[in-house]
Amino acid sequence: MKSTLQTLKALFAAIKPAQTMQIRVAGYSGDRLELTAPLAPNINDKGSAFAGSISSMLVLAGWGLITLRLREAGIQADVVVSKSETEYKRPVRADMRSIAEINAKPFDQLIEELSENQRASIQIAITLRSTGQLCASMAAQYVVSKVH
Amino acid sequence: MKSTLQTLKALFAAIKPAQTMQIRVAGYSGDRLELTAPLAPNINDKGSAFAGSISSMLVLAGWGLITLRLREAGIQADVVVSKSETEYKRPVRADMRSIAEINAKPFDQLIEELSENQRASIQIAITLRSTGQLCASMAAQYVVSKVH
Repeated sequence: MKSTLQTLKALFAAIKPAQTMQIRVAGYSGDRLELTAPLAPNINDKGSAFAGSISSMLVLAGWGLITLRLREAGIQADVVVSKSETEYKRPVRADMRSIAEINAKPFDQLIEELSENQRASIQIAITLRSTGQLCASMAAQYVVSKVH
Repeated sequence: MKSTLQTLKALFAAIKPAQTMQIRVAGYSGDRLELTAPLAPNINDKGSAFAGSISSMLVLAGWGLITLRLREAGIQADVVVSKSETEYKRPVRADMRSIAEINAKPFDQLIEELSENQRASIQIAITLRSTGQLCASMAAQYVVSKVH
């Protein structure tokens, strides 16, 4: 499991904007992936976090969670976000944490669909918190395509 | 008008992730703001543009357009995105261009609401194109708060 997580860290490190945002993997438990980033490199004109950094943290958490789960299931696949709905609830004025969570059922369903089809999609809910408060949330749909 | 556009360029330059993404103001005509970014600094693990860069380009174009229009109208206000719906239609494999557009009517309505209220919101449609093809679109709602 550790090597899969190392792979994810390497993938994040290869995305330059994610490097600038200093997005780090803070924890992974199979059904939950947590990313963190400091406020300083993500600050906007108002001294709070740039909306683009917030959406990047959210979309990467969902993408990372599905990617990790698929690798653990031994499935070679590309994961791409296809749709997202984001709510920016309050300004982020300190370090931030994005959390993607998935239940066993939708993931099992994804695996089942991929056993019969080349491609399947899955919806993930992701939240972003700062100083304990919910600051943003995203519902994102990812398309998973098997790689031969 | 040029000094307002220069202000916007300075605001973008102050956001570190936008600098890494090399987001530039390519054109502004009052009802339309166009931003560009090269693919290279925004590349992901699949050799296409990182979803976080795409959403940043979209959300900044809408934010920039409202900010410019308000300054031209002589209104001191903070502009903050509150909601967005994004569709990622196809991978971006070359330099990209995001375009925010606004009609006179919703902007006039915003100005009217701000003459009576401290705060008002406006919806903007933004698209992102690469090699002439529509690659992503966003419907974003921004909250405008007067600054005293």
